[in-house]
Amino acid sequence: MEEELLMIPGPVPVIPRIRKAMSKPMIFHRGDEFAQMYSEIVENLKSIFQTRNDLFVLSGSGTCAMEAAIGNLIRRTNIAGKTELEGCVTVANGKFGERFKEIAERYGADVTPAHFDWGHSIELEPVKEALDNCPNLKVVTMVHNETSVGMLNPAKEVGKLVKKHDAIFVLDCITSIGGDEAPVDTIGADIAIVGSQKCLGTPPGLAALSVSENAWDLIRENPRRPYYQDLVAYKKSFDKKQTPYTPALPLFFALQEALAVIREEGMAKRIERHRRMSKAIRAAVTSLGLRLFPTLNEVSDYSNTVTATSIPQELTDDQLRGGMRKRGVIVAGGQGDLKGKIFRIASMGNITSTEILRTIEVLEQVLKENEFIEEEGSGLDAAKEVLSTTP
Amino acid sequence: MEEELLMIPGPVPVIPRIRKAMSKPMIFHRGDEFAQMYSEIVENLKSIFQTRNDLFVLSGSGTCAMEAAIGNLIRRTNIAGKTELEGCVTVANGKFGERFKEIAERYGADVTPAHFDWGHSIELEPVKEALDNCPNLKVVTMVHNETSVGMLNPAKEVGKLVKKHDAIFVLDCITSIGGDEAPVDTIGADIAIVGSQKCLGTPPGLAALSVSENAWDLIRENPRRPYYQDLVAYKKSFDKKQTPYTPALPLFFALQEALAVIREEGMAKRIERHRRMSKAIRAAVTSLGLRLFPTLNEVSDYSNTVTATSIPQELTDDQLRGGMRKRGVIVAGGQGDLKGKIFRIASMGNITSTEILRTIEVLEQVLKENEFIEEEGSGLDAAKEVLSTTP
Repeated sequence: MEEELLMIPGPVPVIPRIRKAMSKPMIFHRGDEFAQMYSEIVENLKSIFQTRNDLFVLSGSGTCAMEAAIGNLIRRTNIAGKTELEGCVTVANGKFGERFKEIAERYGADVTPAHFDWGHSIELEPVKEALDNCPNLKVVTMVHNETSVGMLNPAKEVGKLVKKHDAIFVLDCITSIGGDEAPVDTIGADIAIVGSQKCLGTPPGLAALSVSENAWDLIRENPRRPYYQDLVAYKKSFDKKQTPYTPALPLFFALQEALAVIREEGMAKRIERHRRMSKAIRAAVTSLGLRLFPTLNEVSDYSNTVTATSIPQELTDDQLRGGMRKRGVIVAGGQGDLKGKIFRIASMGNITSTEILRTIEVLEQVLKENEFIEEEGSGLDAAKEVLSTTP
Repeated sequence: MEEELLMIPGPVPVIPRIRKAMSKPMIFHRGDEFAQMYSEIVENLKSIFQTRNDLFVLSGSGTCAMEAAIGNLIRRTNIAGKTELEGCVTVANGKFGERFKEIAERYGADVTPAHFDWGHSIELEPVKEALDNCPNLKVVTMVHNETSVGMLNPAKEVGKLVKKHDAIFVLDCITSIGGDEAPVDTIGADIAIVGSQKCLGTPPGLAALSVSENAWDLIRENPRRPYYQDLVAYKKSFDKKQTPYTPALPLFFALQEALAVIREEGMAKRIERHRRMSKAIRAAVTSLGLRLFPTLNEVSDYSNTVTATSIPQELTDDQLRGGMRKRGVIVAGGQGDLKGKIFRIASMGNITSTEILRTIEVLEQVLKENEFIEEEGSGLDAAKEVLSTTP
């Protein structure tokens, strides 16, 4: 059987040289070889994050790092006998933005949501209002690249608003860093998060996050930090270039190799490639008569790493995605209320024009089979045109 | 350079066929192939745990699962406006037993410690007293195989005491399950935990835990469960044989293969092999004039997966472990106050007599070099004698 092509927003296909790195023998996780590898990984990630902040790698998924951010920052003040809850504004227009609200509530934050319909742009005025109205505001969260709706959210603009309130800005860059422009320090993200299995092109199981001095001020005061995700423990262990708990070694081997792949390509070229690939997908689906799902405003944009498209009324989710899967291409469905209403094609990591064109070709076959289009080819032509442009 | 031999209590050496499994292409983590693999892994682990309870695999280290147990069980009652803290007795005679206390305190438990000196046996009378005296007792924790001191703790005996108090028994079997007898349901462990990089012979990065009906009764009442380690979310996702957050796929591939290796060997033989290997190490070090570190009583025993030996006054840690490392064998040092006082040789997973004998040979060379022994050979002879016995 031909290998399935994963065009979902993580796990992404992992190229053989990165997969092969995982089959190396185990090493002593408290020895020099690990320390050197971890240092190298952290330095490379700092460069990709464009940050001078501390940076750590957690053995867990992106959600593990999202919880690390909230759990370390939000002081469960009422446990310590104080009655004032800490304020958190969650800016959201999709599943992952809303996940921050769920996590913050678990940690006893007083959450003021600045939530928009899924796929609607972030509007700055309601965000300003939420920041003004949130009692005891400490933390503001947002997702940079909201994969659930295929949108790139206005990180710089929201970052500026947060700065005025002297709050900590937690930015989920899980699916942007490594594939799109996400200059963490310029944005002013106090904690920025990336996942391994997205634009970095690594298998799932690791997440990295950067932590600013301002964030440390809040974190150090918090006596009830999570244990496995205790960032103070991560910082202390980093003095010896170690992790506080046993790291998932094979995934570190893979990440080290994946970062070498990124260095070889160069980040500027890599971002350009991601933009070209997503632009090609957008061109293809619109030329096929499909409608992109997000509604944009002047500060938001289409995601450069995943394209969300409405499923036309003439087709069911099963016809569309099931049909593509039968042909060996896995694309993602809608999440939550969007289940059955949209489908999402990711273009992250180390995939190339070949995978993009195979996906469009299969999409066209399915649309033709279901009589949504009469002729195949216009999607492929549109994609090829974009892909053939030199930046 | 010859490959280093890792004789530490995790990560253990991973045999090529298990490492190779990790280099497979990624699969759709919400598809049938993952569901089948996860089911198979869970069924195999249940058999090894000897449990009928629910069982889940977390993408995180053993500590991640320890926190999952405590964080899900201990209700941070005062957050919800109640004033009564939940009681937790932590039974400990080493680093990992004490870790449970640290975690329980993070979650606001009222901890009554039943702690003994590191390396001292668990005494049942003080445990009984702690159980009697702990206000609002809900949870009791213990480490089955305490690697920090090389001891096997009396799980069945403590389990019986816990049952009388109608409390939940959390048993860290991170370094016993897969290498030693640990019949979870017979012991009465409501939550039992195993780590991937120990006796299962898998790389680090996964942990599995079983959850009893009694444990669920407490967990379901808890509105402030951790998020990444939310066991209710794990249970819900398991209906579809999925994990709530993206699983570390390559490590699941490795675990699936490692469980196949275990099935092929058979658990009875595997336990016998672990016992023989640790017995051989004990025989070797004592015949060389070294002293085993633990002090035993009638309910405790030497660990069958790691041997803790006192470093003789004539040698420094650096001479002993540093000398062994120079010869390519990594053994573990003492932790906490035991740093420099003991060294620990693990015998976990898929290692064989070859690795045991290489370790003893190198130990003898170092002891000779430092004039602690005059002649090499007695340790090897003692080890060989044990290893040559058929069970």
